[in-house]
Amino acid sequence: MKGRFITFEGGEGCGKSTQVKRLVDHLRASGIEVVVTREPGGTRLAELIRALLKDEREDPPCDRSELLLFLAARAQLVRNVIRPALSAGKWVVCDRFSDSTFAYQGYGRGLRLDDLRRMNDFACDGLAPDLTLLLDVRPDVACERMRRREAATNTVSDRIEQAGDAFHQRLRAGFMELAAADPGRIKVLDANGSPDDVWRSVLETVNKAWA
Amino acid sequence: MKGRFITFEGGEGCGKSTQVKRLVDHLRASGIEVVVTREPGGTRLAELIRALLKDEREDPPCDRSELLLFLAARAQLVRNVIRPALSAGKWVVCDRFSDSTFAYQGYGRGLRLDDLRRMNDFACDGLAPDLTLLLDVRPDVACERMRRREAATNTVSDRIEQAGDAFHQRLRAGFMELAAADPGRIKVLDANGSPDDVWRSVLETVNKAWA
Repeated sequence: MKGRFITFEGGEGCGKSTQVKRLVDHLRASGIEVVVTREPGGTRLAELIRALLKDEREDPPCDRSELLLFLAARAQLVRNVIRPALSAGKWVVCDRFSDSTFAYQGYGRGLRLDDLRRMNDFACDGLAPDLTLLLDVRPDVACERMRRREAATNTVSDRIEQAGDAFHQRLRAGFMELAAADPGRIKVLDANGSPDDVWRSVLETVNKAWA
Repeated sequence: MKGRFITFEGGEGCGKSTQVKRLVDHLRASGIEVVVTREPGGTRLAELIRALLKDEREDPPCDRSELLLFLAARAQLVRNVIRPALSAGKWVVCDRFSDSTFAYQGYGRGLRLDDLRRMNDFACDGLAPDLTLLLDVRPDVACERMRRREAATNTVSDRIEQAGDAFHQRLRAGFMELAAADPGRIKVLDANGSPDDVWRSVLETVNKAWA
Protein backbone atom coordinates (compact mmCIF):
# COMPACT_ATOMS: atom_id res chain seq x y z
CA MET A 1 0.00 0.00 0.00
CA LYS A 2 1.23 3.47 -0.86
CA GLY A 3 1.18 6.08 1.90
CA ARG A 4 -0.37 9.52 1.78
CA PHE A 5 1.44 12.82 1.52
CA ILE A 6 -0.11 15.84 3.28
CA THR A 7 1.45 19.30 3.32
CA PHE A 8 0.62 22.43 5.31
CA GLU A 9 1.14 25.83 3.72
CA GLY A 10 0.61 29.46 4.62
CA GLY A 11 2.42 32.65 5.56
CA GLU A 12 4.28 33.36 8.80
CA GLY A 13 2.04 33.29 11.88
CA CYS A 14 -0.67 31.16 10.25
CA GLY A 15 -0.38 28.47 12.92
CA LYS A 16 0.97 25.65 10.73
CA SER A 17 3.30 24.13 13.31
CA THR A 18 0.52 23.79 15.90
CA GLN A 19 -1.82 22.12 13.41
CA VAL A 20 0.89 19.81 12.04
CA LYS A 21 1.45 18.55 15.56
CA ARG A 22 -2.26 18.02 16.23
CA LEU A 23 -2.79 16.16 12.97
CA VAL A 24 0.22 13.92 13.54
CA ASP A 25 -0.91 13.11 17.10
CA HIS A 26 -4.41 12.35 15.82
CA LEU A 27 -3.21 10.07 13.00
CA ARG A 28 -0.86 8.19 15.31
CA ALA A 29 -3.63 7.74 17.85
CA SER A 30 -5.65 6.20 14.98
CA GLY A 31 -2.87 3.65 14.47
CA ILE A 32 -1.36 5.20 11.33
CA GLU A 33 2.41 5.27 10.92
CA VAL A 34 3.35 8.89 10.30
CA VAL A 35 6.58 10.59 9.32
CA VAL A 36 6.51 14.27 10.22
CA THR A 37 8.98 16.66 8.66
CA ARG A 38 9.50 20.26 7.67
CA GLU A 39 10.96 22.40 4.95
CA PRO A 40 13.60 23.50 4.46
CA GLY A 41 15.08 20.68 6.52
CA GLY A 42 14.25 17.16 7.54
CA THR A 43 17.62 15.58 6.81
CA ARG A 44 21.03 16.47 8.19
CA LEU A 45 22.12 18.07 4.89
CA ALA A 46 18.80 19.87 4.44
CA GLU A 47 19.01 21.30 7.98
CA LEU A 48 22.51 22.61 7.17
CA ILE A 49 21.03 24.25 4.06
CA ARG A 50 18.21 25.64 6.23
CA ALA A 51 20.77 27.34 8.44
CA LEU A 52 22.32 29.03 5.37
CA LEU A 53 18.90 30.23 4.23
CA LYS A 54 17.76 31.50 7.59
CA ASP A 55 20.88 32.88 9.19
CA GLU A 56 23.34 34.01 6.55
CA ARG A 57 23.32 37.79 6.82
CA GLU A 58 26.88 38.63 5.79
CA ASP A 59 26.43 37.23 2.26
CA PRO A 60 22.67 36.63 2.00
CA PRO A 61 21.61 34.45 -0.95
CA CYS A 62 20.46 36.32 -4.04
CA ASP A 63 16.97 35.38 -5.25
CA ARG A 64 18.20 32.67 -7.63
CA SER A 65 20.61 31.20 -5.11
CA GLU A 66 17.88 31.20 -2.46
CA LEU A 67 15.56 29.25 -4.76
CA LEU A 68 18.26 26.72 -5.66
CA LEU A 69 19.11 26.17 -1.98
CA PHE A 70 15.46 25.50 -1.14
CA LEU A 71 15.29 23.03 -4.02
CA ALA A 72 18.54 21.32 -3.00
CA ALA A 73 17.11 20.77 0.49
CA ARG A 74 13.84 19.49 -1.04
CA ALA A 75 15.60 17.06 -3.39
CA GLN A 76 17.42 15.49 -0.45
CA LEU A 77 14.27 15.30 1.68
CA VAL A 78 12.20 13.70 -1.09
CA ARG A 79 14.91 11.21 -2.01
CA ASN A 80 15.93 10.14 1.48
CA VAL A 81 12.84 10.62 3.64
CA ILE A 82 9.51 11.22 1.87
CA ARG A 83 9.71 8.66 -0.96
CA PRO A 84 10.98 5.83 1.26
CA ALA A 85 8.22 6.54 3.80
CA LEU A 86 5.46 6.62 1.17
CA SER A 87 6.80 3.42 -0.41
CA ALA A 88 6.62 1.76 3.01
CA GLY A 89 2.93 2.74 3.26
CA LYS A 90 3.46 5.46 5.87
CA TRP A 91 1.77 8.84 5.84
CA VAL A 92 4.00 11.88 5.54
CA VAL A 93 3.01 15.25 6.99
CA CYS A 94 5.26 18.12 5.92
CA ASP A 95 5.34 21.69 7.20
CA ARG A 96 5.77 23.56 3.86
CA PHE A 97 6.62 22.07 0.45
CA SER A 98 6.52 23.11 -3.23
CA ASP A 99 3.69 25.62 -2.86
CA SER A 100 5.89 27.69 -0.54
CA THR A 101 8.43 27.90 -3.37
CA PHE A 102 5.81 29.12 -5.83
CA ALA A 103 4.42 31.63 -3.31
CA TYR A 104 7.67 32.96 -1.81
CA GLN A 105 10.08 32.81 -4.76
CA GLY A 106 7.44 33.31 -7.44
CA TYR A 107 4.83 35.74 -6.14
CA GLY A 108 7.11 37.11 -3.38
CA ARG A 109 10.46 37.51 -5.13
CA GLY A 110 9.16 37.78 -8.68
CA LEU A 111 10.88 34.75 -10.26
CA ARG A 112 8.95 33.26 -13.20
CA LEU A 113 6.45 30.59 -12.18
CA ASP A 114 7.13 28.34 -15.16
CA ASP A 115 10.88 28.30 -14.35
CA LEU A 116 10.00 27.45 -10.75
CA ARG A 117 7.61 24.66 -11.71
CA ARG A 118 10.13 23.02 -14.02
CA MET A 119 12.97 23.19 -11.53
CA ASN A 120 10.77 22.12 -8.64
CA ASP A 121 9.61 19.13 -10.65
CA PHE A 122 13.26 18.20 -11.18
CA ALA A 123 14.01 18.56 -7.45
CA CYS A 124 11.00 16.41 -6.45
CA ASP A 125 11.51 13.98 -9.29
CA GLY A 126 7.82 14.46 -10.03
CA LEU A 127 6.45 13.94 -6.51
CA ALA A 128 3.48 16.14 -5.49
CA PRO A 129 1.40 16.13 -2.29
CA ASP A 130 -1.91 14.26 -2.23
CA LEU A 131 -3.50 16.97 -0.08
CA THR A 132 -2.39 20.48 0.86
CA LEU A 133 -3.95 22.46 3.70
CA LEU A 134 -3.48 26.17 3.16
CA LEU A 135 -3.98 28.06 6.41
CA ASP A 136 -5.06 31.57 5.53
CA VAL A 137 -4.86 34.40 8.08
CA ARG A 138 -5.41 38.14 7.84
CA PRO A 139 -2.14 40.15 8.02
CA ASP A 140 -3.09 41.79 11.32
CA VAL A 141 -3.75 38.40 12.95
CA ALA A 142 -0.47 36.96 11.60
CA CYS A 143 1.46 40.01 12.80
CA GLU A 144 0.02 39.83 16.30
CA ARG A 145 0.85 36.09 16.53
CA MET A 146 4.44 36.68 15.44
CA ARG A 147 4.85 39.49 17.95
CA ARG A 148 3.60 37.23 20.71
CA ARG A 149 5.89 34.40 19.58
CA GLU A 150 8.93 36.68 19.59
CA ALA A 151 8.06 37.89 23.08
CA ALA A 152 7.37 34.37 24.41
CA THR A 153 10.51 32.78 22.97
CA ASN A 154 12.70 35.86 23.30
CA THR A 155 13.81 35.53 19.66
CA VAL A 156 13.79 37.82 16.67
CA SER A 157 12.30 36.81 13.34
CA ASP A 158 14.67 35.58 10.63
CA ARG A 159 15.78 37.02 7.28
CA ILE A 160 12.71 35.81 5.37
CA GLU A 161 10.16 36.61 8.09
CA GLN A 162 11.48 40.20 8.07
CA ALA A 163 10.92 40.70 4.32
CA GLY A 164 8.32 43.45 4.79
CA ASP A 165 4.58 44.03 4.38
CA ALA A 166 4.37 44.31 0.59
CA PHE A 167 6.21 40.98 0.29
CA HIS A 168 3.83 39.25 2.70
CA GLN A 169 0.78 40.68 0.89
CA ARG A 170 2.06 39.33 -2.47
CA LEU A 171 2.69 36.04 -0.72
CA ARG A 172 -0.87 35.71 0.61
CA ALA A 173 -2.37 36.64 -2.76
CA GLY A 174 -0.03 34.12 -4.40
CA PHE A 175 -1.11 31.29 -2.13
CA MET A 176 -4.75 32.07 -2.93
CA GLU A 177 -4.05 31.98 -6.68
CA LEU A 178 -2.26 28.65 -6.34
CA ALA A 179 -5.26 27.25 -4.47
CA ALA A 180 -7.70 28.58 -7.05
CA ALA A 181 -5.69 26.88 -9.81
CA ASP A 182 -5.59 23.49 -8.07
CA PRO A 183 -8.75 23.21 -5.94
CA GLY A 184 -8.71 19.40 -5.95
CA ARG A 185 -5.45 19.27 -4.01
CA ILE A 186 -5.17 22.61 -2.17
CA LYS A 187 -7.85 23.33 0.44
CA VAL A 188 -8.01 26.84 1.89
CA LEU A 189 -8.83 26.93 5.61
CA ASP A 190 -9.77 30.04 7.57
CA ALA A 191 -7.01 30.19 10.18
CA ASN A 192 -8.00 33.43 11.94
CA GLY A 193 -9.76 31.63 14.77
CA SER A 194 -8.46 29.78 17.82
CA PRO A 195 -6.23 26.69 17.47
CA ASP A 196 -9.28 24.55 18.36
CA ASP A 197 -11.39 26.16 15.62
CA VAL A 198 -8.66 25.65 13.03
CA TRP A 199 -8.11 22.07 14.17
CA ARG A 200 -11.78 21.25 13.56
CA SER A 201 -11.40 22.47 9.95
CA VAL A 202 -8.18 20.50 9.50
CA LEU A 203 -9.72 17.28 10.77
CA GLU A 204 -12.86 17.71 8.68
CA THR A 205 -10.81 18.40 5.54
CA VAL A 206 -8.53 15.40 6.03
CA ASN A 207 -11.46 13.09 6.75
CA LYS A 208 -13.32 14.31 3.68
CA ALA A 209 -10.27 13.84 1.43
CA TRP A 210 -10.26 10.09 1.97
CA ALA A 211 -13.93 9.53 2.83
CA MET B 1 34.33 48.52 -21.83
CA LYS B 2 33.11 45.06 -20.97
CA GLY B 3 35.61 42.66 -19.43
CA ARG B 4 36.44 39.15 -20.55
CA PHE B 5 35.43 35.93 -18.89
CA ILE B 6 37.84 32.97 -19.11
CA THR B 7 37.22 29.58 -17.49
CA PHE B 8 39.47 26.57 -16.95
CA GLU B 9 37.99 23.09 -17.07
CA GLY B 10 39.17 19.51 -16.79
CA GLY B 11 39.16 16.48 -14.52
CA GLU B 12 41.02 16.08 -11.23
CA GLY B 13 44.80 16.28 -11.58
CA CYS B 14 44.71 18.17 -14.91
CA GLY B 15 46.76 21.05 -13.48
CA LYS B 16 44.09 23.77 -13.66
CA SER B 17 45.02 25.57 -10.46
CA THR B 18 48.65 25.99 -11.55
CA GLN B 19 47.66 27.36 -14.94
CA VAL B 20 45.00 29.68 -13.49
CA LYS B 21 47.68 31.21 -11.30
CA ARG B 22 50.14 31.62 -14.18
CA LEU B 23 47.55 33.23 -16.44
CA VAL B 24 46.39 35.63 -13.74
CA ASP B 25 50.00 36.64 -12.95
CA HIS B 26 50.67 37.16 -16.65
CA LEU B 27 47.54 39.27 -17.22
CA ARG B 28 48.23 41.41 -14.17
CA ALA B 29 51.84 41.94 -15.29
CA SER B 30 50.34 43.16 -18.59
CA GLY B 31 48.38 45.80 -16.65
CA ILE B 32 44.98 44.09 -16.86
CA GLU B 33 42.70 44.14 -13.82
CA VAL B 34 41.82 40.53 -13.08
CA VAL B 35 39.38 38.91 -10.67
CA VAL B 36 40.33 35.30 -10.01
CA THR B 37 37.83 32.92 -8.51
CA ARG B 38 36.85 29.28 -8.31
CA GLU B 39 33.85 27.00 -8.28
CA PRO B 40 32.13 26.01 -6.20
CA GLY B 41 33.02 29.03 -4.08
CA GLY B 42 34.19 32.58 -4.53
CA THR B 43 31.74 34.24 -2.12
CA ARG B 44 31.21 33.61 1.58
CA LEU B 45 27.90 31.81 0.94
CA ALA B 46 29.29 29.85 -1.99
CA GLU B 47 32.27 28.68 0.09
CA LEU B 48 29.85 27.46 2.77
CA ILE B 49 28.01 25.53 0.04
CA ARG B 50 31.36 24.19 -1.18
CA ALA B 51 32.01 22.77 2.27
CA LEU B 52 28.66 20.92 2.15
CA LEU B 53 29.49 19.50 -1.28
CA LYS B 54 33.02 18.44 -0.43
CA ASP B 55 32.86 17.32 3.16
CA GLU B 56 29.37 16.11 4.00
CA ARG B 57 29.77 12.35 4.42
CA GLU B 58 27.08 11.58 6.99
CA ASP B 59 24.21 12.70 4.70
CA PRO B 60 25.91 13.13 1.31
CA PRO B 61 23.83 15.04 -1.26
CA CYS B 62 21.85 12.88 -3.69
CA ASP B 63 22.55 13.60 -7.37
CA ARG B 64 19.78 16.18 -7.73
CA SER B 65 20.65 17.92 -4.48
CA GLU B 66 24.32 18.01 -5.48
CA LEU B 67 23.46 19.67 -8.78
CA LEU B 68 21.20 22.24 -7.11
CA LEU B 69 23.88 23.10 -4.55
CA PHE B 70 26.46 23.67 -7.29
CA LEU B 71 23.97 25.92 -9.10
CA ALA B 72 23.11 27.83 -5.91
CA ALA B 73 26.81 28.58 -5.40
CA ARG B 74 27.12 29.62 -9.07
CA ALA B 75 24.09 31.94 -8.95
CA GLN B 76 25.62 33.79 -6.01
CA LEU B 77 29.07 34.00 -7.63
CA VAL B 78 27.69 35.30 -10.93
CA ARG B 79 25.41 37.85 -9.28
CA ASN B 80 27.83 39.20 -6.69
CA VAL B 81 31.29 38.74 -8.21
CA ILE B 82 31.51 37.88 -11.91
CA ARG B 83 28.88 40.24 -13.39
CA PRO B 84 30.02 43.28 -11.38
CA ALA B 85 33.66 42.63 -12.39
CA LEU B 86 32.82 42.25 -16.07
CA SER B 87 30.64 45.37 -15.99
CA ALA B 88 33.59 47.27 -14.52
CA GLY B 89 35.75 46.16 -17.47
CA LYS B 90 37.81 43.66 -15.48
CA TRP B 91 38.79 40.21 -16.69
CA VAL B 92 37.52 37.24 -14.74
CA VAL B 93 39.41 33.94 -14.58
CA CYS B 94 37.44 31.13 -12.98
CA ASP B 95 38.64 27.65 -11.98
CA ARG B 96 35.63 25.57 -13.19
CA PHE B 97 32.24 26.83 -14.32
CA SER B 98 29.16 25.54 -16.20
CA ASP B 99 31.01 22.94 -18.25
CA SER B 100 31.95 21.13 -15.03
CA THR B 101 28.24 20.84 -14.28
CA PHE B 102 27.54 19.33 -17.69
CA ALA B 103 30.50 16.96 -17.41
CA TYR B 104 30.17 15.87 -13.75
CA GLN B 105 26.41 15.91 -13.22
CA GLY B 106 25.48 15.10 -16.80
CA TYR B 107 28.03 12.67 -18.20
CA GLY B 108 29.30 11.61 -14.74
CA ARG B 109 26.09 11.23 -12.71
CA GLY B 110 23.73 10.65 -15.63
CA LEU B 111 21.35 13.60 -15.20
CA ARG B 112 19.77 14.80 -18.46
CA LEU B 113 21.83 17.42 -20.27
CA ASP B 114 18.82 19.49 -21.38
CA ASP B 115 17.60 19.74 -17.76
CA LEU B 116 21.10 20.81 -16.74
CA ARG B 117 21.40 23.42 -19.48
CA ARG B 118 18.05 25.01 -18.62
CA MET B 119 18.73 25.12 -14.90
CA ASN B 120 22.29 26.31 -15.39
CA ASP B 121 21.05 29.10 -17.62
CA PHE B 122 18.67 30.14 -14.84
CA ALA B 123 21.50 30.08 -12.26
CA CYS B 124 23.82 32.16 -14.49
CA ASP B 125 21.00 34.41 -15.69
CA GLY B 126 22.31 33.72 -19.20
CA LEU B 127 26.02 34.42 -18.61
CA ALA B 128 28.50 32.18 -20.48
CA PRO B 129 32.31 32.33 -20.63
CA ASP B 130 34.00 34.06 -23.58
CA LEU B 131 36.75 31.44 -23.63
CA THR B 132 37.12 28.07 -21.95
CA LEU B 133 40.45 26.23 -21.68
CA LEU B 134 39.89 22.51 -21.30
CA LEU B 135 43.01 20.84 -19.91
CA ASP B 136 42.95 17.23 -21.03
CA VAL B 137 45.13 14.59 -19.34
CA ARG B 138 45.36 10.84 -19.68
CA PRO B 139 43.93 9.00 -16.64
CA ASP B 140 47.33 7.55 -15.65
CA VAL B 141 48.92 11.01 -15.63
CA ALA B 142 46.01 12.49 -13.61
CA CYS B 143 46.18 9.63 -11.13
CA GLU B 144 49.90 10.01 -10.59
CA ARG B 145 49.53 13.77 -10.02
CA MET B 146 46.77 13.26 -7.48
CA ARG B 147 48.84 10.66 -5.63
CA ARG B 148 51.76 13.06 -5.48
CA ARG B 149 49.51 15.90 -4.30
CA GLU B 150 48.06 13.76 -1.52
CA ALA B 151 51.56 12.79 -0.40
CA ALA B 152 52.90 16.35 -0.57
CA THR B 153 50.00 17.96 1.27
CA ASN B 154 49.28 15.03 3.56
CA THR B 155 45.57 15.14 2.62
CA VAL B 156 43.10 12.66 1.24
CA SER B 157 40.96 13.34 -1.79
CA ASP B 158 37.37 14.47 -1.22
CA ARG B 159 33.99 12.85 -1.87
CA ILE B 160 33.88 13.77 -5.57
CA GLU B 161 37.54 13.05 -6.32
CA GLN B 162 37.00 9.55 -4.91
CA ALA B 163 34.09 8.73 -7.26
CA GLY B 164 35.93 5.92 -9.05
CA ASP B 165 37.51 5.14 -12.43
CA ALA B 166 34.36 4.60 -14.51
CA PHE B 167 33.02 7.96 -13.33
CA HIS B 168 36.25 9.74 -14.27
CA GLN B 169 36.31 8.09 -17.69
CA ARG B 170 32.75 9.24 -18.43
CA LEU B 171 33.80 12.67 -17.25
CA ARG B 172 36.72 12.93 -19.64
CA ALA B 173 34.66 11.70 -22.59
CA GLY B 174 31.95 14.19 -21.59
CA PHE B 175 34.34 17.14 -21.57
CA MET B 176 35.56 16.15 -25.07
CA GLU B 177 31.98 15.99 -26.38
CA LEU B 178 31.22 19.41 -24.90
CA ALA B 179 34.30 20.82 -26.62
CA ALA B 180 33.39 19.21 -29.94
CA ALA B 181 29.92 20.79 -29.76
CA ASP B 182 31.24 24.30 -29.02
CA PRO B 183 34.68 24.60 -30.67
CA GLY B 184 34.51 28.40 -30.91
CA ARG B 185 34.49 28.80 -27.14
CA ILE B 186 36.05 25.62 -25.72
CA LYS B 187 39.69 24.97 -26.64
CA VAL B 188 41.16 21.56 -25.77
CA LEU B 189 44.76 21.71 -24.56
CA ASP B 190 47.05 18.70 -24.14
CA ALA B 191 47.88 18.86 -20.43
CA ASN B 192 50.00 15.72 -20.15
CA GLY B 193 53.27 17.65 -20.34
CA SER B 194 55.14 19.75 -17.79
CA PRO B 195 53.56 22.91 -16.31
CA ASP B 196 55.82 24.97 -18.62
CA ASP B 197 54.62 23.06 -21.70
CA VAL B 198 50.97 23.51 -20.73
CA TRP B 199 51.53 27.19 -19.94
CA ARG B 200 52.86 27.80 -23.46
CA SER B 201 49.61 26.36 -24.90
CA VAL B 202 47.50 28.42 -22.50
CA LEU B 203 49.27 31.66 -23.42
CA GLU B 204 49.10 30.94 -27.13
CA THR B 205 45.36 30.12 -26.92
CA VAL B 206 44.51 33.24 -24.94
CA ASN B 207 46.55 35.47 -27.26
CA LYS B 208 44.92 33.95 -30.33
CA ALA B 209 41.40 34.40 -28.88
CA TRP B 210 41.74 38.18 -28.88
CA ALA B 211 44.33 38.67 -31.62
